[in-house]
Formats: sequence, C-alpha cells, structure tokens
Amino acid sequence: MTGTTEFDVVAMGNALVDVIADVDEEFLDDMGLVKGSMTLVDADRAEELYTAMPPAIEISGGSAGNTIAGVASFGARAAYIGQVADDQLGKVFRHDIRAIGVAYDVVPAKGPSPTGRCLIAVTPDAQRTMNTYLGAGVDLGPEDVPDDLIRSAKVTYLEGYLWDPMRAKQAFRKAAQLAHEAGRKVSLTLSDSFCVERHRDDFLDLVAGHVDILFANEAEIHSLYQVKSFEEALKRVRGHCEVAALTRSEKGSVIVTKNGTDVIKAAPVPAVVDTTGAGDLYAAGFLFGYTRGLDVRRCGELASLAAAEVISHFGARPEIHLMSLL
Amino acid sequence: MTGTTEFDVVAMGNALVDVIADVDEEFLDDMGLVKGSMTLVDADRAEELYTAMPPAIEISGGSAGNTIAGVASFGARAAYIGQVADDQLGKVFRHDIRAIGVAYDVVPAKGPSPTGRCLIAVTPDAQRTMNTYLGAGVDLGPEDVPDDLIRSAKVTYLEGYLWDPMRAKQAFRKAAQLAHEAGRKVSLTLSDSFCVERHRDDFLDLVAGHVDILFANEAEIHSLYQVKSFEEALKRVRGHCEVAALTRSEKGSVIVTKNGTDVIKAAPVPAVVDTTGAGDLYAAGFLFGYTRGLDVRRCGELASLAAAEVISHFGARPEIHLMSLL
Repeated sequence: MTGTTEFDVVAMGNALVDVIADVDEEFLDDMGLVKGSMTLVDADRAEELYTAMPPAIEISGGSAGNTIAGVASFGARAAYIGQVADDQLGKVFRHDIRAIGVAYDVVPAKGPSPTGRCLIAVTPDAQRTMNTYLGAGVDLGPEDVPDDLIRSAKVTYLEGYLWDPMRAKQAFRKAAQLAHEAGRKVSLTLSDSFCVERHRDDFLDLVAGHVDILFANEAEIHSLYQVKSFEEALKRVRGHCEVAALTRSEKGSVIVTKNGTDVIKAAPVPAVVDTTGAGDLYAAGFLFGYTRGLDVRRCGELASLAAAEVISHFGARPEIHLMSLL
Repeated sequence: MTGTTEFDVVAMGNALVDVIADVDEEFLDDMGLVKGSMTLVDADRAEELYTAMPPAIEISGGSAGNTIAGVASFGARAAYIGQVADDQLGKVFRHDIRAIGVAYDVVPAKGPSPTGRCLIAVTPDAQRTMNTYLGAGVDLGPEDVPDDLIRSAKVTYLEGYLWDPMRAKQAFRKAAQLAHEAGRKVSLTLSDSFCVERHRDDFLDLVAGHVDILFANEAEIHSLYQVKSFEEALKRVRGHCEVAALTRSEKGSVIVTKNGTDVIKAAPVPAVVDTTGAGDLYAAGFLFGYTRGLDVRRCGELASLAAAEVISHFGARPEIHLMSLL
C-alpha cells in the first residue's frame, strides 16, 4: 500500500433496514420460503410477507453495512457507500451507521422507492431466511462513489449482492478500479450461494482478476467453482486471490494464501440466538486485523470472535464494543 | 358485567414506536436526563437526543400498546385505540400490534406530524430513561373512540399518559363514560410519577369516581396522594376503586380491595436486561386474569409472571406466547 490513508476500510453495499421476527418452521412452508437463503422480492411480495410475519423489530442491516459497523466497533476508521431514500427508515439507517462511528455521506435517493428492507424470519434453530426488497438501493450508481474516498482507504470492501441492482455493478467496478490504481486492496464477499448462481461468470472473472481478499462460505465457494468437495474448492481458489477466507459455520474457517492454508477454530458461543450477520462480522474482524498488519491467522481469530459475538443475540450488528474483545 | 362481549380488553393510549439504545451513565448526564423518568419532548429536542444516541433498535411500544399486546399474547380478545401517522413507523406500529392478534382499526392521522416515538436510553443497571415525542398522537380525539367497541369490551384500559396530548382526555372521558353506561369496567394506569404531578387533580377525581381497576407503582401512588409512606398510600386508595394493584419493583406488588390486601411476590428473573414495559405487562397479566374471572391473588401472580418475562429481554412486548406461562 502506498501513501497515507484516511480510512482503513470503505464498504459498499445495499443499504437495508432489517425487519426481524421469530417464526416457526410452518411459517417458512406456508410462505414457500427456502431456509437459509436470501431471495430478492418486489414491493408486493414484500408487503405480502410482512403482513404474514409476527411482530418484528427494525434494526439497521445490509451485509456490507453490518461489516463496516463491525470494523468501526473494533476502533478502525470506516466509511460506507450505499443508497437509502429520504424517509424514516432511511433516517434510521443513517443514524445507526453514523452513531457507531462510520463516515456515511451518500445523499438520499430522490426517486419514488422507499428505503430497502430485508425481512428476516428466524426459526427456532437460529437460522435466518431473508427476503430482500432493494427499494432505493437500485438507485446506487457510479456517481455515488467518490474517487477520493476510495483512494483514501486501505481496503475497499464490496458485497456480491451489489450485482443484483442494475447500476450498482458499475459503481462496484469503478470502486475496484480506483482502489487498485491507488495501490489499495479490493475485498469481496460472495454474499450468498444463490447470488453466486445468478452472477457466476462475472464473479469468476472478479475473483480471478480483481479481488485481493475474498470471503465466502462453503456453499458459496462450491457454487462459484461448481465443485462438490471443499478440498476441490480450496485447490481452485488458491492463487486467484492474495487471501481467501472461507467460513464453515461451527467448523470454523480456512484461510488460503499463496504461502499455505490456516485452519481457524470457531470461537465458542454459549447459545446461538440468531445467525444473521455471522459472515458479515467475520469479514469485519478479518479486515480489522488485516488493516492493522496482523498475520492471517490472527486476522482469522479476530474474525471468529466477532462472528461469535453477533450470533449470540438478535440482530446483525455488534451489541458490544468489539475492541473490548482485543 | 352485563350481556355478551366481543372483547376482553380494549386499551387506549399514545401509539409510539420505541427507539431503544444501550447507553452509559455519562450519556444521561451529558444530555441532562433524569434516570427512570418519562419526559415529553418536541420534535427538535427529539432530533437532538436521537443524533446523540448510539445505534438503536426500533420496536413497537406505547404503554397501553404494550399492555394490550400482552393481553393478546395470553390468548384474550384484545383491541387498541391510538393514533399513528400514515408513514413507515405508523405501518410498523400497525403491523406489530395486529400481528400479535390485537384488533386495531384507527385511521392514520392526516396531519403533518409523523408517528410518535419514545427514545429509550437503557443504562447498564437495566433502568430505562424515556423521552417521548408524541407526534401524530396529539391528533387522537373522541371521534376515534367507536361506541360499539367500548361497549363490547369487558374492560376499557386507559393510560394516564393520555392526559398529555390536548384532545385525548376527551377521548378518555368518552370511553370511560361509554364503558360504565354499558355496565363494563374502567381501568387506569397512572403511568409515571411526573405524569401524576402534571395532572394530579384530574387523576384524583378519576380515581375517586371513575376507575374500577387502578394500576400504579410506588412513586406514582405516593405522588397522587402526596404522601411519603406506602402504608399511608394504601389507606388512601382503599375504597376509591374496586381494585388497586400497586407495584413495587423487586418487592412485588400489593393488591387492595374492599375485602383486604394481598401481597404478591415478584416472579424470579435470571437476569434483568431492560425494565421497559414491566408495569405495562404487569397490567396485561392482571387484566387477563380479571377478565377470566380469577381471584385477585391469581391475577397478581399472572401479572408478576408477565412482568418478569418482559424485563428478561430488550423491548417492552413479550417475546414468547404468554399463554405458555399458564
């Protein structure tokens, strides 16, 4: 990395407010939902699902939003790019991300779409099933990516979900190019196995040529390379990126670099309440360590600690100052 | 009580969405807040406080709203009257109260005020300090009280906070009169000791002549009669109402009727997380038992169980089906 930086990490993603409710297994069946998946829905389907949902809590979310909140909670310098509308949920999103210390200055969209939301149904096994209405998120475009901001951050972190709204991928590509031109690092999470299905060719191209630090879970990396074994996936990803951090739920994670492979244990959790945000906070811990110059094993350990904190309670952002874990 | 009823309890109150955040003691000092109190604030002060607050969760609240959610959660037939605006937080309030099984058909206000909210700062000792911006709540008036609804409910439950917005007290008086004319019961919570300060003369008149079932905590009943000892307060309230249920936090509660005094223990709580809603859920349990025809001791025990559930987690509405406690 060259030059001084104003930020450790700038994250870009779909800005969403989570609407989280406890449901029973029957709810998933009745509504035709596939457990553990993230499905994109339109406004009508979102309304239908919301009407059927039990009482909920509203809490700021969005995958990259959760990650950058975690990065800030560790005490690193963090910024966020994502699009909300000029409405109450947009204000909630802006308040919460700023209140945790993240720089967030995207001007609210002027279009008719409301702030996006993610309806999250949490089953008794702590699994979350997500239905996302992108709303104003579809207005995110390259004009929302400030050149200076990207250049001034050690790492630009992008979520794969950005490949869903039409113009966000242009914003994504612009950010990745700016970062590399400035000698910075680009990080990507594959986000969701269905998201990988939708955009496999583009993601293969990104991972092979444009990403320095890759995050994926087992299902996502299998889907990317269309392989059945984790070992085969490891073989394929090695050499594509500087670092690939592959998460395996309670089995911990595996970090692949050109120098070798590190296996990291999952941190213990007294009781898993809601797995929403586990991958997001894993990335937060890892990127915090990475921007501090720690070795990848230590980065992975911080990642596991942050993930363990977030699955021990409802909601996808930390409830404690993560720097207290250090 | 005479005739058949469609509802067990209809509750009327200020419809609010709670904005709850963990804060440290310093936050209360910095913002000039008195711990444990409920303060009415205007839109500007609400904005100032919100800007200073840490990341928060949004969850439907309102004192009587919490109580009626608890009544419905016990499996009783419940309805609610309270005013929201036609905005996102209004939709959240409507969704949540209906989703728990409460009939709620008040037409959203057309005025410029947004849905009311209660900014709740929770300190490490689990105490909540509340700042309420009433918003559209001030539009509630007698025209929002359907005669048939009040007549069809065994108990009409009213919160003292209704004495704050200008026209709500007319709605309150209309509801109480309709209920009594139909041979139903009227119940009141004194809500907050500062609320009692603001409206003592009116509350004394209500308690002496218009209320059958009174709920108050120690500070509120002391304030009402301007006495220093709990025994003195007990003496004063006896005979004023059919039942007075007086709560004393971890010391449990005391139920006063013309036949005598019952002392009820607080139900055990493994860890007190957030005391918001304790009084509201106490009233829910009591009213559920009362409308089932149970004796006041059993009503008090159900009240304690419901209060214990709600203080064991963040938020002022039950997270479990309260009927599972039976």
